Amino acid sequence: MSNFADRLQRRIDELGNPSCLGLDPLLSYLPESWHKEFDFTKDEDIYLGLKRYCFDLISAAADIIPAIKPQMAYFEQYGSAGIRVLQDIIVQAKSVNMLVILDGKRNDIGSTASAYSDAYLGENSLSADALTVNGYLGSDGIVPFLEKCHKNGKGIFILCRTSNPSAGELQDLKLSDGRLVYEAMADLIAEWGSNLTGEEGISSAGAVVGATWPQQAKALRERIPQSLFLIPGFGAQGGTAANAIAGFDQNGRAAIVNASRSLMLAWKKHGLKHDDFAEALRLEAVAMRDSLREALAL
Amino acid sequence: MSNFADRLQRRIDELGNPSCLGLDPLLSYLPESWHKEFDFTKDEDIYLGLKRYCFDLISAAADIIPAIKPQMAYFEQYGSAGIRVLQDIIVQAKSVNMLVILDGKRNDIGSTASAYSDAYLGENSLSADALTVNGYLGSDGIVPFLEKCHKNGKGIFILCRTSNPSAGELQDLKLSDGRLVYEAMADLIAEWGSNLTGEEGISSAGAVVGATWPQQAKALRERIPQSLFLIPGFGAQGGTAANAIAGFDQNGRAAIVNASRSLMLAWKKHGLKHDDFAEALRLEAVAMRDSLREALAL
Repeated sequence: MSNFADRLQRRIDELGNPSCLGLDPLLSYLPESWHKEFDFTKDEDIYLGLKRYCFDLISAAADIIPAIKPQMAYFEQYGSAGIRVLQDIIVQAKSVNMLVILDGKRNDIGSTASAYSDAYLGENSLSADALTVNGYLGSDGIVPFLEKCHKNGKGIFILCRTSNPSAGELQDLKLSDGRLVYEAMADLIAEWGSNLTGEEGISSAGAVVGATWPQQAKALRERIPQSLFLIPGFGAQGGTAANAIAGFDQNGRAAIVNASRSLMLAWKKHGLKHDDFAEALRLEAVAMRDSLREALAL
Repeated sequence: MSNFADRLQRRIDELGNPSCLGLDPLLSYLPESWHKEFDFTKDEDIYLGLKRYCFDLISAAADIIPAIKPQMAYFEQYGSAGIRVLQDIIVQAKSVNMLVILDGKRNDIGSTASAYSDAYLGENSLSADALTVNGYLGSDGIVPFLEKCHKNGKGIFILCRTSNPSAGELQDLKLSDGRLVYEAMADLIAEWGSNLTGEEGISSAGAVVGATWPQQAKALRERIPQSLFLIPGFGAQGGTAANAIAGFDQNGRAAIVNASRSLMLAWKKHGLKHDDFAEALRLEAVAMRDSLREALAL
């Protein structure tokens, strides 16, 4: 398969939309009518209900948004039923030409990192296009994923400066050489990704850089110009379009902005009924796309 | 439920053995005869084969070793079949009085960290006694787990100085205040765990400190004296008993040493047949226990 960053950037260009649909499903997000139809004390009904919900979201977004980002915790919390849903939505997303970025923030070493890379960037039922990972363990925890990126045309996004309020407790500590901890992580990311740059000039070993920290994002873009950025925190976490685009390159490329709750729960904002959550997602997805286009002056 | 650190330390004391059985199962670890009996192209057979293998290991170890540490990657790589095995072995381990430390190195924020804490430290089918986590995201990523530790008598082990060769690439960087990055992480761990100290004087929010770095482990024990240490890297990764005990307190307590491959694959070392892997595990578990006792001069 061709380079992940090439595939993602080209799909972004086709749709004119550098945004990503985060899937963080909870049973409480499903319409009330479904809670009458299904019996969520049963694993099989959890599987069927969550699957229908995610499939509806994917169908509604597929001609607008280039990628989905399933947040693995939300599937893992439902045990094997949740993992079956995840397997099915990976297949479904591919069938409608959406790329799949699994948000697992995995991190481990040697044979264990290999097991993770087999699980999520290999040939198995849970194989996605890309995975988020945590670089705290250094190269041992990253190289097994890089090998899969090379061999299978996959991508990784390594946590750099995260979107949450306490991100700085460790990430902003100042090193004796003048760098901050997240800048040192960025330098490692650039090194790890140096051989994964595709035809679009973007590396498939990218960085997670929160939409809530525009100054840091801007500085990181200059520091590691070829890295693909995954930018979470848009919408419910408070990131605006103006803040989210701070991590894009000067051509308005090399980054993708994720929104989860603001898309899944758009029916509230748009004054629609809960049953019309998929229609509302389309309205909000177009609004998000247009706000990013405007901010990027595209 | 009572404090996790109390429950673990008391079981360690009962068995006179501060060691932990790591479960990192691969289909290739199953005896050849099983590969004839099962058809591992089928999910159901993967489930049945892995379950029998893990149950055999647990049964063989239950009267010697106080805890198991399933490495989640190895279960996740088999998709929903692997997760079903994990659910079953959590139940099985509890029934034979072994504590379960899930090694997932999870890390995320806010509602997502809550979803993980519900999944692994809650009331669900995958609820264990403790979970390994990564603190790179700061308090936002840890507090939801601490709440479960308080409420449900659970524990967490936060990555501090890991056992792998490249651990130092980020963890050993020197800060402008003179600390190293992993020392700053240790200080955060002590702070996070300050309200989780039980009757044994040990906090249930502990640290992962590799058996391969005895000098760092010794200094960390002095730095954060009340933290429970999970010490991986014994055996196959090269950690010896003398190195592994560097992180114990002066009374030879407050730490547990994990071995995975050296126990699972003990039949090779002991010259037994592959089919006798469980018997070999008993031999090796006793040898490991005795070597730790000797090193601790107990």
